Amino acid sequence: MKYVGIDVGGTNVKIALVDKKGKIVKKTSLKTFGTRDAVHVIGDIANAVLRLCEGVEYKAVGVGCPGAIDSANGIVEYSPNLYWKDVALAKGISERTGKPVKISNDANVAALGETKFGAGKNYTDTALLTLGTGLGGGFVVHGKLFEGFHSMGTEIGHTVISEGGVQCSCGRKGCFETYCSATALIRETLFAMHTDKNSGMWEHCGKDLNKVDGRTAFACARKGDASALKVVDSYIRSLAEGILNVVAVFRSQAVILGGGVSGEGEYLTDQLQKIVDAQRYGGADSLRTVILAARLGNDAGVIGAASLVM
Amino acid sequence: MKYVGIDVGGTNVKIALVDKKGKIVKKTSLKTFGTRDAVHVIGDIANAVLRLCEGVEYKAVGVGCPGAIDSANGIVEYSPNLYWKDVALAKGISERTGKPVKISNDANVAALGETKFGAGKNYTDTALLTLGTGLGGGFVVHGKLFEGFHSMGTEIGHTVISEGGVQCSCGRKGCFETYCSATALIRETLFAMHTDKNSGMWEHCGKDLNKVDGRTAFACARKGDASALKVVDSYIRSLAEGILNVVAVFRSQAVILGGGVSGEGEYLTDQLQKIVDAQRYGGADSLRTVILAARLGNDAGVIGAASLVM
Repeated sequence: MKYVGIDVGGTNVKIALVDKKGKIVKKTSLKTFGTRDAVHVIGDIANAVLRLCEGVEYKAVGVGCPGAIDSANGIVEYSPNLYWKDVALAKGISERTGKPVKISNDANVAALGETKFGAGKNYTDTALLTLGTGLGGGFVVHGKLFEGFHSMGTEIGHTVISEGGVQCSCGRKGCFETYCSATALIRETLFAMHTDKNSGMWEHCGKDLNKVDGRTAFACARKGDASALKVVDSYIRSLAEGILNVVAVFRSQAVILGGGVSGEGEYLTDQLQKIVDAQRYGGADSLRTVILAARLGNDAGVIGAASLVM
Repeated sequence: MKYVGIDVGGTNVKIALVDKKGKIVKKTSLKTFGTRDAVHVIGDIANAVLRLCEGVEYKAVGVGCPGAIDSANGIVEYSPNLYWKDVALAKGISERTGKPVKISNDANVAALGETKFGAGKNYTDTALLTLGTGLGGGFVVHGKLFEGFHSMGTEIGHTVISEGGVQCSCGRKGCFETYCSATALIRETLFAMHTDKNSGMWEHCGKDLNKVDGRTAFACARKGDASALKVVDSYIRSLAEGILNVVAVFRSQAVILGGGVSGEGEYLTDQLQKIVDAQRYGGADSLRTVILAARLGNDAGVIGAASLVM
């Protein structure tokens, strides 16, 4: 049996036909739809699904969507990226395709995909932390998506790990996101460069600060640059605090790192694993949490969305 | 129909027969059992249940127990307070009473009791934070106990809210517990008294530092004592941070405060409510979380335990 997974983003919509093993059979995508009325957008998505699946039997459609999603009722309550408010997305797609449709927040859906078919496939209880522009979280508990009340929880990026710390866009100070997003990593890299004019990071970016990104400090730390090492150490320490907080509450078997920063692979996960092994609640006798890098990459969204309805 | 609730503590075991409305019909208790072998203790508990319920029809037995509890298998994996390790508590009581038995961690069970029959009875999604010697947490999600993987989660007291902060007994620094337990409140009260010899707190405790407790700062803050107000303000601010973290992840409809400090009632909850209203993720348009004081007091354990099997 096959399933359709749809990953609705701010710039484009990816649609894939996915088999029971989480493999993509066929895929397509739509361009960004800006401020067009939701009813037309939903029509375009449904038409693309019908075209993709012509002559193919499929069971149901899963959708991952940014913003505040009422998954029980299939409604996008509020999605600033899409300019949507109270849009009955599931009903709209279901009416046009004749298939059952489930929707959820995009970070949640990616967590489900990584757990069923990616880095977390040996586990039932996982957390996916997406280290990108922001810091998103998705949680799988006993094999099912955990979404919190009214599917409005899991905003782990907006939990404070350093009271009174760096100002966050959410209004609070010291959020996990303000220390561990790629954005935060770049900010600290720039700060370190300004306080160490001899750092190898200057050469690494061709003395062009616009070229500094989330990889700059890691690349130079691997070569032993002292200031880069300080940035990376501090980043990893804060990331470990957030991971240990997740472990204390969820006792996840695996914490999976996604987003750009997770490209650092074992250089990152090995250091985190050491701290988590040493400091997890309950100590050495207690259940262990493994730290992994995500594996599905850009396909996590569509595969995760399809896995919503498997 | 009636149900038995058992609250196993380090110093005594409370047992109650509870009706469907969460009212205690009859109750009894056993003295502490120190280092006696678990099999004898379980025998004593079962005998007390049989005596309490003589001639009364009851359906099942629920038990709340401190420590690491494998609730799926009814096993107390590790309970330092009871000197127990890998004790098949549910099976032991079930064999002797002939009734189905469920067990869970005591903080979780109290959360379930407060949600079904106490302060949270209008809600399906709640968090109970117990502000006592430590800071315990229990979570109800969609009307059911949330326990995390292998029922080893919900250690919200051991999530860091202030990276690199006060040393916690768990090994980490800056845990929620180190700022918001009653123990932390007393520590900060003593600190404030030492830096302000004119504070009314000195008179309040009869100049005997041994009499300082979790109520001292609150009592003097209510009278306008400047140093006491600073202690209480700081305590409430940190407590709000921890509550806002819970809201970000669980989006609980209600956060219920238990333990000694919750006796401060609306003086405490009103101030927390203002901060949570202003700073919750998603702002004024998003779902509101109400802050409440627990209502079941010392009965939360037995009522909550009984509600495990309702």
